[in-house]
Amino acid sequence: MINKNAFRDMSYGVYIVSTLDGARPTGCVANSVMQITSEPATIAVSINHGNYTNSCIEKTGKFAISILSEESDSGLIGTFGFQSGKEVNKFDGVEAVVKEDVSVIADACGYVICKVIDKMETFTHTVFLGEVIDADVLKKEDAMTYAYYHKVVKGKSPKNAPTYIAEEAEEVKTAKWVCGICGYEYDGKVPFEELPEDFTCPLCKQPKSVFKKVD
Amino acid sequence: MINKNAFRDMSYGVYIVSTLDGARPTGCVANSVMQITSEPATIAVSINHGNYTNSCIEKTGKFAISILSEESDSGLIGTFGFQSGKEVNKFDGVEAVVKEDVSVIADACGYVICKVIDKMETFTHTVFLGEVIDADVLKKEDAMTYAYYHKVVKGKSPKNAPTYIAEEAEEVKTAKWVCGICGYEYDGKVPFEELPEDFTCPLCKQPKSVFKKVD
Repeated sequence: MINKNAFRDMSYGVYIVSTLDGARPTGCVANSVMQITSEPATIAVSINHGNYTNSCIEKTGKFAISILSEESDSGLIGTFGFQSGKEVNKFDGVEAVVKEDVSVIADACGYVICKVIDKMETFTHTVFLGEVIDADVLKKEDAMTYAYYHKVVKGKSPKNAPTYIAEEAEEVKTAKWVCGICGYEYDGKVPFEELPEDFTCPLCKQPKSVFKKVD
Repeated sequence: MINKNAFRDMSYGVYIVSTLDGARPTGCVANSVMQITSEPATIAVSINHGNYTNSCIEKTGKFAISILSEESDSGLIGTFGFQSGKEVNKFDGVEAVVKEDVSVIADACGYVICKVIDKMETFTHTVFLGEVIDADVLKKEDAMTYAYYHKVVKGKSPKNAPTYIAEEAEEVKTAKWVCGICGYEYDGKVPFEELPEDFTCPLCKQPKSVFKKVD
């Protein structure tokens, strides 16, 4: 018997994985990142086939991991996690620093740049193995864990994330107001209907009008 | 420039990965575990070539992941992380439940059993890709993160862990008393020399006499 709720106890960070689309930077949100070897240092990252970033990493053979901190702007998750880099330049308006030609989120607590040295294909995701060519700490802040994002920021998973299914298992008990763009669930004390009209989604910054009532 | 301190901001859980050595259960501590696909569910785990568990997973094609919680006995990390399953039966005296023939830690907050469907070799570690065949929640407790283990439990990494190098970067400022078995660093208010003779390492439960002074 597979009780998928057990998967929710596995711990992850929250990362923006970026690469190049020609000369343009692009990227997506990822949780599935882990160090594999220490000398030389290698990192594995799992990216859904459906993510535009996957095909771009395939082409350039290079990726950056920006490690988000608890203080990082959670709007980054909406920007990078809930729209496609095929259609928009996700780095528009995002403060970035370029390292080894790849754009890194300036608001992250650290970054790691890798060149792809191997990969493993699965049904839906590619696990890229990257050798680290550059890495540094940007801010002395606690790294954001997925549990923190879920519990404190009240965030949801993009639908391509392996963690997505686990959340579907949650029971919906009462009517909720959910952002139609990023899935953020409003749970403030003020009833949603009474919020000012200039209320915006704290995650993806979309207006109040994109919220939908879910029974 | 590779500043390895950046690697320390990547988030991990704390897991016991177990398998069979013939009819006998064996296992080791791992941090590098991540879900890859959701349907069918697959999990990747990275195990050092030097760990006896690696060759046993290779033979049986099966592994279990016990997800430790913040309340799990941290002595498990000493038992499974700082000795070899070749020499001792690590499950001796450990409360376990058998699932799909593999022993799982009863004191974990959940477990996942996988059959190996693919693997990726690196210089020092094998990344096993396992399809989940059984999974369940055992306790409603917060999962232990590596950061929690490091900050709250004051634990160290086994030397085969990829996270090990990152800790070596820490500056040693003053003389410390360190457990010669598991590497636990004593940092209580009472000077180490004044501790009672029946003091035992809070991690691996070894006696005071195994502690060494490190300058």
